[in-house]
Amino acid sequence: MSHGYEGAELLERVRKANPLVHNITNVVVTNFTANGLLALGASPVMAYAKEEVAEMAKLAGALVLNIGTLNAAEVEAMLMAGRAANEAGVPVIFDPVGVGATNYRTETARCIAEQIKLAVVRGNAAEIANMIGEPWMIKGVDAGQGSGDVVALAKRAAAELGTVVAITGKEDVVTDGQTVYVVGNGHPLLTKVTGTGCLATSVIGAFAAVERDAVKAAVAALTYYGVAAERAAAEVGERGPGSFQAAFLDALAHTTADDVKRTGRVEQR
Amino acid sequence: MSHGYEGAELLERVRKANPLVHNITNVVVTNFTANGLLALGASPVMAYAKEEVAEMAKLAGALVLNIGTLNAAEVEAMLMAGRAANEAGVPVIFDPVGVGATNYRTETARCIAEQIKLAVVRGNAAEIANMIGEPWMIKGVDAGQGSGDVVALAKRAAAELGTVVAITGKEDVVTDGQTVYVVGNGHPLLTKVTGTGCLATSVIGAFAAVERDAVKAAVAALTYYGVAAERAAAEVGERGPGSFQAAFLDALAHTTADDVKRTGRVEQR
Amino acid sequence: MSHGYEGAELLERVRKANPLVHNITNVVVTNFTANGLLALGASPVMAYAKEEVAEMAKLAGALVLNIGTLNAAEVEAMLMAGRAANEAGVPVIFDPVGVGATNYRTETARCIAEQIKLAVVRGNAAEIANMIGEPWMIKGVDAGQGSGDVVALAKRAAAELGTVVAITGKEDVVTDGQTVYVVGNGHPLLTKVTGTGCLATSVIGAFAAVERDAVKAAVAALTYYGVAAERAAAEVGERGPGSFQAAFLDALAHTTADDVKRTGRVEQR
Repeated sequence: MSHGYEGAELLERVRKANPLVHNITNVVVTNFTANGLLALGASPVMAYAKEEVAEMAKLAGALVLNIGTLNAAEVEAMLMAGRAANEAGVPVIFDPVGVGATNYRTETARCIAEQIKLAVVRGNAAEIANMIGEPWMIKGVDAGQGSGDVVALAKRAAAELGTVVAITGKEDVVTDGQTVYVVGNGHPLLTKVTGTGCLATSVIGAFAAVERDAVKAAVAALTYYGVAAERAAAEVGERGPGSFQAAFLDALAHTTADDVKRTGRVEQR
Repeated sequence: MSHGYEGAELLERVRKANPLVHNITNVVVTNFTANGLLALGASPVMAYAKEEVAEMAKLAGALVLNIGTLNAAEVEAMLMAGRAANEAGVPVIFDPVGVGATNYRTETARCIAEQIKLAVVRGNAAEIANMIGEPWMIKGVDAGQGSGDVVALAKRAAAELGTVVAITGKEDVVTDGQTVYVVGNGHPLLTKVTGTGCLATSVIGAFAAVERDAVKAAVAALTYYGVAAERAAAEVGERGPGSFQAAFLDALAHTTADDVKRTGRVEQR
Repeated sequence: MSHGYEGAELLERVRKANPLVHNITNVVVTNFTANGLLALGASPVMAYAKEEVAEMAKLAGALVLNIGTLNAAEVEAMLMAGRAANEAGVPVIFDPVGVGATNYRTETARCIAEQIKLAVVRGNAAEIANMIGEPWMIKGVDAGQGSGDVVALAKRAAAELGTVVAITGKEDVVTDGQTVYVVGNGHPLLTKVTGTGCLATSVIGAFAAVERDAVKAAVAALTYYGVAAERAAAEVGERGPGSFQAAFLDALAHTTADDVKRTGRVEQR
C-alpha cells in the first residue's frame, strides 16, 4: 500500500520537527492528550485564556479545538485562536465532542465550523452526522452503525463542511469528499479508555503541522495511532483498560515508521 | 449474605444497561472518574456549562455532583442540573468534598442539599459530620475516628438530610437513617490514589441508575468497589500507588458478579 | 555530601508531618500532582475559587501557584491566596509555566512576583530567563542550553527577584543568589511525561512546609525527586513513558531517606 509507506515517512517528519500543538480541549483529557503528544514526539501546549490564545495559536504548528467540556468563555477563546490560526496559516483541527447530545454543543460546533476554516474535523459517526443535521443516535459521546453508511456519511459531511472529515470507529474513514481512505488498524480497548478519540484528533494536529495535504496527514496519523493501539493491546493481553492506557502511551513512543510500513492497513475506497 | 447476592445481580444490571452518568465534578479527578466508569461498564459524560447541563442531566441515568474544585459558575450549573434531574426523576448523588475545610464549601454543600432532592450523599466521616454541623476535624480532604461513631453519625446525617448517606473509610457505612449496612471490603491503597472517593460516588451513581432503592444501590456499588480494590492490591503487591491506580481500573473491568458474591462482606447493623 | 544527608532527614520530616499543600495549578497536571504529593506522603488540596482560596491557603503548610493554564479569575485567586499565605507566614512556591511564550504569561508572572513574597520560584531555564527579561528561546514550555550559563542565570534571577530560584533541567540549580547547589540526580524520561516539572514545584512546597530555609528545602526536594526518577527509570527499562509515569509514582512512595543518602548527588558550586 503506497499510503502506508507515505504514513511511515510522515511519522518520521513529525518526530524530526517536534511540532508545537496548541490544544484548547476538555478537562477530562488534558493530561492524557499532553502525554500522548509527548510520546509521539510532538510538543503539547494547552492555553485557554482570551488574553493569550491568539498569540499562542500563531506560534503553533497546529491548533486543536475540542468542545468536550465547553463553556462560553472557552468557546470565545476557541474562535479567537481559530481566527488567529487561519490568518497565520496554521492548520486547525476540530473535535466536535458530543454534538447532537445537547443543543448547545450542536450550535457551538456549527458556529465554529462556519467561522473558522478547518483543516480536519474528526469525530465518531454520530458526531459527524449531527454536525450536518443528519439524525444519528448519540449517547453522551458514542454511537455505532454499519460501515458502508459511514463512508457515505463522511463524504456528505466533507462536502457540506468544505473540509477533510475523519470518522473513527471500528474502521477509520478519511475523506475530502472525493477520495476516501479507510484505515483498518486499531483495537476495541481504545473504547475503554477515555480520551482516545480526543488524542487521535491532537495526533492528527501534529501530523498536519508537517504535512499540508490534510487527507494524507489524517490517514498517516490514524494509521500510526491504530498500529500503536494494536501493539499496546498485544502487550497487555487480558490485563485491562488501566494497563492498556499506560501501554498505549509506551506504544505511541515506540511505534516506528517501519512498524507502520509493515502493519499499517490503509485502503482507498 | 443475601445482600452480597443482590449486589452481584445489580452489577450485572449495570453492565447490561451501560447507563449514562452525568458528572459535574472536580478538575483533579475527571480523567480517573471517566476511566473508572468505563471500566465498570457505564457511560460517563462530563458537562458543566449552564447552557447545557439541564438537557444533559435529563438524558442521564444518574447525575453526580462533586464540589472538589467548586466555583460560582459551577455551583450554579450544579443547581440547574440538579433541578432538571429532580424533575425528570433522575437520581442525584452528591459528594461534598472538603466540607468543613472552608466556609464556602460548607455553605455551598448545605445549599445544594437544601435545594436538590438527593438520592445519596457520599463522603468521609469529616465531610458528613460537617454537612450537619457536627464538629469533626478535617484536613484538606480527610479525617479518621472510631467506627462505632461513624454508624451513629451516618444515621443522624441521613435523618437530618432526608437522604441515604454513605460514609466511606476503613469500613463503609450506608444508611437511610433506619437500616444500616456496613461493607467490609476495600484496601488502604485506595487512600494513596487521588479521586478514589470521588469515583466511588460516581460508581454509586451508575448503580443508582438501574436500582431506585438507593440503599441497595450504594451498598452494591461499594461492595463491588471494595472487592475490586482488594483484587488490585493483590495484583500489585508492594509495587506502589502508581501501579495500583492502573491495576484498580483493570480490576473494575474484570471484577464479576461472581467475585462479588464470593468475597463481598456486607453486614446489617 | 553533607547536603545529601540533610535532604534525607528532611524527607523523613515531610513524611512525619504529612503537610497540607494547597495547589492552584493548571488543568493538565492536577491529577498527577495530587497523586505525586500523596505518594511522597504529603496531603494535597486543590482550591481555586476566590470565595475560599485565602481561607484554604492559611490552613496549608505551603501554597503552590502554577500558571500553566492561567485565566483572569485564576490569577485573581492566586493573588488573594498568595497575600493570605504571606500574612500567615505560609511559604509560597511559584511555577511560571510558559513565561516568555505569550505576553500574558510574562506579565502575569511578573505581577505575581512583585505582589507576593515568594519562597521559591522553580522553572526551566527559559522560564526563569524570561521572568527577568533576559532573552531565551522558549517553545511552548521548554528550552535548553549550556549548564555554566544556567548557574549564572539562576544567580541573577535570585538577586533580581529576591527569592530562592530553582532551575531544573539536566542538572538542577538552586540558589538564593549567593550559595549555589547543583543536584545531579534525575532522568531524561522525566521530559517525556507532562507535569513532572509542575510536580517538582509542588514537592518543593511540601518540603518548604517543614523547613523554612528555602534553599535547603528546594535542594532536598529535588534530590529526592531525582533519586526517585532514577529508581523508576531503572524499573521500567525500555518500556516507555506510560510505564514510567506509574513507576515514578511508585518510586516517590518507596524512595527512602536512606536511598537519598546513598545516591543523592548534590554539590555546592
